[in-house]
Amino acid sequence: MLEEMKERVCDGNIALAEHDLVIFTWGNLSEIDFDKRVVGIKPSGVSFQELEPKDIVLLDLEGRVLEGSKRSSSDTPTHLEIYRNFPEVKAIVHTHSTHATAFAQAMKEIECFGTTHADHFYGSVPVTRKLKAEEIVNDYEANTGKVIVECLKEKGIDPLEVPACLVANHGPFVFGESAEKAVENAVVLEQVARMNLETLKTNSGVKPIDSALLDKHFLRKHGKNAYYGQPKSQGD
Amino acid sequence: MLEEMKERVCDGNIALAEHDLVIFTWGNLSEIDFDKRVVGIKPSGVSFQELEPKDIVLLDLEGRVLEGSKRSSSDTPTHLEIYRNFPEVKAIVHTHSTHATAFAQAMKEIECFGTTHADHFYGSVPVTRKLKAEEIVNDYEANTGKVIVECLKEKGIDPLEVPACLVANHGPFVFGESAEKAVENAVVLEQVARMNLETLKTNSGVKPIDSALLDKHFLRKHGKNAYYGQPKSQGD
Amino acid sequence: MLEEMKERVCDGNIALAEHDLVIFTWGNLSEIDFDKRVVGIKPSGVSFQELEPKDIVLLDLEGRVLEGSKRSSSDTPTHLEIYRNFPEVKAIVHTHSTHATAFAQAMKEIECFGTTHADHFYGSVPVTRKLKAEEIVNDYEANTGKVIVECLKEKGIDPLEVPACLVANHGPFVFGESAEKAVENAVVLEQVARMNLETLKTNSGVKPIDSALLDKHFLRKHGKNAYYGQPKSQGD
Amino acid sequence: MLEEMKERVCDGNIALAEHDLVIFTWGNLSEIDFDKRVVGIKPSGVSFQELEPKDIVLLDLEGRVLEGSKRSSSDTPTHLEIYRNFPEVKAIVHTHSTHATAFAQAMKEIECFGTTHADHFYGSVPVTRKLKAEEIVNDYEANTGKVIVECLKEKGIDPLEVPACLVANHGPFVFGESAEKAVENAVVLEQVARMNLETLKTNSGVKPIDSALLDKHFLRKHGKNAYYGQPKSQGD
Repeated sequence: MLEEMKERVCDGNIALAEHDLVIFTWGNLSEIDFDKRVVGIKPSGVSFQELEPKDIVLLDLEGRVLEGSKRSSSDTPTHLEIYRNFPEVKAIVHTHSTHATAFAQAMKEIECFGTTHADHFYGSVPVTRKLKAEEIVNDYEANTGKVIVECLKEKGIDPLEVPACLVANHGPFVFGESAEKAVENAVVLEQVARMNLETLKTNSGVKPIDSALLDKHFLRKHGKNAYYGQPKSQGD
Repeated sequence: MLEEMKERVCDGNIALAEHDLVIFTWGNLSEIDFDKRVVGIKPSGVSFQELEPKDIVLLDLEGRVLEGSKRSSSDTPTHLEIYRNFPEVKAIVHTHSTHATAFAQAMKEIECFGTTHADHFYGSVPVTRKLKAEEIVNDYEANTGKVIVECLKEKGIDPLEVPACLVANHGPFVFGESAEKAVENAVVLEQVARMNLETLKTNSGVKPIDSALLDKHFLRKHGKNAYYGQPKSQGD
Repeated sequence: MLEEMKERVCDGNIALAEHDLVIFTWGNLSEIDFDKRVVGIKPSGVSFQELEPKDIVLLDLEGRVLEGSKRSSSDTPTHLEIYRNFPEVKAIVHTHSTHATAFAQAMKEIECFGTTHADHFYGSVPVTRKLKAEEIVNDYEANTGKVIVECLKEKGIDPLEVPACLVANHGPFVFGESAEKAVENAVVLEQVARMNLETLKTNSGVKPIDSALLDKHFLRKHGKNAYYGQPKSQGD
Repeated sequence: MLEEMKERVCDGNIALAEHDLVIFTWGNLSEIDFDKRVVGIKPSGVSFQELEPKDIVLLDLEGRVLEGSKRSSSDTPTHLEIYRNFPEVKAIVHTHSTHATAFAQAMKEIECFGTTHADHFYGSVPVTRKLKAEEIVNDYEANTGKVIVECLKEKGIDPLEVPACLVANHGPFVFGESAEKAVENAVVLEQVARMNLETLKTNSGVKPIDSALLDKHFLRKHGKNAYYGQPKSQGD
């Protein structure tokens, strides 16, 4: 079971590079087995090209290493903070993908301008407040997790309904109910951010879509009345 | 014959992915045999990589399934509405391609700024009005088709002369006299939208081209006096 | 000798597609043997993927076909007009490459903002005037050549020193002392146009570079005092 | 040892092309063995595709050729000027990469808008003053090196802490403690420049990040208290 987790975490990290979301050693993906209270995460500073399942570091929710000879991603405390607060989140992706990072650097929410966004994110993708100097100097990575949690809770966001949060001056953290889904959401986030910017260039006065359209698109793909895709019984 | 249609529809859908117009399961292509009153369309939520001719769903013009075990694209009612109103349209493509979608999200027509556009679209590519809340809540996909039909008819547009329509807040639907031609038009639409945006960045006051130039370029490639390409008798 | 010309013209046309300067059947390359008064050019509407040397059409400078069973590019009269007026031009490329076409559509010169431009183009890349309605209706393609010639002559431009001209509302025509060089110039033109636009976004008040820098970069690569690259005797 | 240097310099130059930082013969990489006082550099005007270790030219710090039958890069005097002034710089890359060059052409610093930048560059990437006409006419390439040195010294920049400098109207020169690191810094510089431009489009009033965040990200990867990546003893 944990061998399978290491394979999924390894595959998911490699997928980030294949989707051109990360270069060099930037970015990482983790997955949690909440029942076993085990998190699997990318080791720090290892290139995606060289990554193997045996490199994946396993930790408990307090950050104690359970298995693995390498140092875990420097962003590990950020992931753990999110998992501890949102048990529904089963996987987390962090990238510096170009357009999502531009919004994070600009400290602007990604507003919902169309159905591509609404199909995957149930409203604006939020941006955290900036960290204070003292939050940066001590426990920076844990505090990064804390401002994400604070941002989502203050806005009442369900991290599986709006499965991404931009950290101000930094970049996106993306969530999913599985490693595969978190990767997909990270790909979509980058594309939605890119189209959002192009939309603003075409019409700087554009407004977010109406709530009826947002509801329609998000809910036809998610939740109990979804009718997009094949019925689950078909194994699709 | 219908086996050939399923192959063409499958190939056309795969071509959308190869031309980078779609990612994941976004987008779809259908074709109609108007004499037989049969429409072939992509199944819902199936990835382009895994698509096979046997997956293509065959329906009549009222949406009754004639053949196929999978659920058809959730956009099926949109396609059928267009086919019912424009018998000259033999194939329809829907994508969320980046720049065409930006115009749809911005609710701006794609004006004709040059001969690349004029070679394929005989004037501005229109954008529909927004759907009303009640049109979204009930029969959303059929109503999407209805606003496309309304838009084209109000503007007196022949969907083979201007073979695309942007749905507000959503993305492009593209038409063709064949599946292959509809794919080509979708590729050109994306490129024309991209160049249109770059043109506006270079000169925000640019005006559409003169009608003489629009006529020249469209009509040297289309209609009975066309002289672009090889004579048809050469099989080119 | 003419077989070699057909191979070079075929290779040059294929190179346009490989460099992502053309899609589908857009664009074309021709070469002239001025002594023999023979022009080789791409056939009309044939895809770059399928092009073979035997498809290349050979014509004289008045446009009479000397060899080849296919119809020559619809832009043939444009090429011939340029060759008749500028005997130093040995090859011509026409593309609808994205950023160069954006400048043509915007009817803006591509000013020289840096040494990349100055290494290949000895000053601004000019844009023609718009064609008049009567020039479009009759002999459109020949008149396109005439406005290019008019533009270069009025500005006193040597087409090997500034080896490109943007046709208003249309796209670039690019020149070279050989087919290979014309392709290279077309690649550089697109990159220079792209960087020019990014430069303007970074600083909308940017000015063209000083003439001393323009002279230095152009003349260290071109003309009798060039010192860039390997000495010719080394066959480099 | 010098054979190994020629291999590293050859590989580094080829990597520039593989990372899409250079096209044709634009750009070059050199490395220095400061103890032996030998610099290895790309030959002038040779394409990256054809480059072999035996083509690399070896020179002393005064520019006298020690080994190699080809003419060295025309930018050689620029590289030597930098090496003579900054012994800590062990490798130099010069490219015309799209977005970094746009900033150089626009004569704008690349300000630090996020942690991607801060992970690699400890503050703004500076831009030199323009060269004067007399500096261009005589000893242009050496004077290019001199304005880089002047720029870094006036601003008190350590070229391994901010390992790049934009030459006004020209493009970036990038530094590293090894050839491999200089290539990496050139890739990151282009990506940071691209994200910087997208950030400004999203929010034209964005400010550089706080010094606490800059310190945190740069110093967790560089210097004696770095904790990013694997411990050196692990050979990672």
